[in-house]
Amino acid sequence: MTAKKIKKAVILHSGGLDSTTCLYWALNKGYECICLNVTYGQKHKKETNCCRKICENLKVKLIEINLNLPWLKDVTSLVGGNKTPIPNEPLSKIKSIGRLPSTYVPARNLIFASIAASLADSIGASAIVMGANSVDYSGYPDCRPRFYVPLERAIFEGTRSAVGGARIAVLTPLLKMSKAQITKLGAKLGVPFGLTWSCYRGGKKPCGKCDACRLRKEGFDKAGIKDK
Amino acid sequence: MTAKKIKKAVILHSGGLDSTTCLYWALNKGYECICLNVTYGQKHKKETNCCRKICENLKVKLIEINLNLPWLKDVTSLVGGNKTPIPNEPLSKIKSIGRLPSTYVPARNLIFASIAASLADSIGASAIVMGANSVDYSGYPDCRPRFYVPLERAIFEGTRSAVGGARIAVLTPLLKMSKAQITKLGAKLGVPFGLTWSCYRGGKKPCGKCDACRLRKEGFDKAGIKDK
Repeated sequence: MTAKKIKKAVILHSGGLDSTTCLYWALNKGYECICLNVTYGQKHKKETNCCRKICENLKVKLIEINLNLPWLKDVTSLVGGNKTPIPNEPLSKIKSIGRLPSTYVPARNLIFASIAASLADSIGASAIVMGANSVDYSGYPDCRPRFYVPLERAIFEGTRSAVGGARIAVLTPLLKMSKAQITKLGAKLGVPFGLTWSCYRGGKKPCGKCDACRLRKEGFDKAGIKDK
Repeated sequence: MTAKKIKKAVILHSGGLDSTTCLYWALNKGYECICLNVTYGQKHKKETNCCRKICENLKVKLIEINLNLPWLKDVTSLVGGNKTPIPNEPLSKIKSIGRLPSTYVPARNLIFASIAASLADSIGASAIVMGANSVDYSGYPDCRPRFYVPLERAIFEGTRSAVGGARIAVLTPLLKMSKAQITKLGAKLGVPFGLTWSCYRGGKKPCGKCDACRLRKEGFDKAGIKDK
């Protein structure tokens, strides 16, 4: 009898509802999970703290990476030093050709996936799990299915997998789910909603007004679940 | 009469021969160039110093990014803290299915390109220029043409370009050139060879033994050019 080899997965974990649901999803699928939290100078560190608590409770390994990309403060209202206030209006309303909300972070998911691919390639993980979703979302191009097809291919061709190493799958289990469906899945998997943080602002309590808060509230309301 | 809009390009610049040739190539094509030097804990900083001098001489803007990816020291002999010595044998000889030289840095060019894409998307640059080449090279998967096709597509789909913004081309002018051809091109463009650094080791002079030195020497010899 040979021992069953446990598959490893790298989870991009922001500490928010979606990525925490992804973590629980991957654990439920039997993956040994390694979480990766990548910060890029956000105005608050609430999410990273949530990440730490969630991983600590689950005894899951967490690796924290801090990126300092000096141009982000010029273009992204989420980043410290940027003077544009985080908007309250629903971002889907201001989305239009060539115009993206000020909360858009250029190439964020591409950078996150690349760093996760480096870790996966280094430890022999067979999957990267990302919480992107394209249904109830803020209009970011890197949250849509058409981005993930070439991304997975680029990771395949650009790593050890291309020369006979293990293939690294890019798994996005929430990609085509609504926020209500994600909330229901999270509830089913036992996600500790109270430990997750979605708000773009870093107050004591979520602001209830930004797009992240609005989408989260809609999700819980539609799912008929109470948010703690 | 309307003023001609100058196209911007982000050059991934290590300070080595290939990326410096790329910088001169892009300047020669009329691009306004912004150089990006990304370090990841290498055992020496020789290349970054070369980068600074070259950019200073050309009055080209240089942005330096330091990445701290803690898993690299476990897998890459180029990174500080890794005890595997940088090999002297020609790396093409130890390349085989599933086996890559210890100088392989998992997902390096994917990470580099992602960060460059973020900068390009932020400043409205229409190109990223990378010095990868697949002819006289060390067998790294992320130096081959088949990697750059899905990479360019992922950058297109994952950035502002996918929603009507400017397209970001991934330009790899050296991809199918031999080291001799690159050396000839560099000589033609006036690349200051003496300011570039290729050696994997960080001694006072290049070691002359590592794969980077070996490939460089072969290139100059075949091109009939004297390396300063």
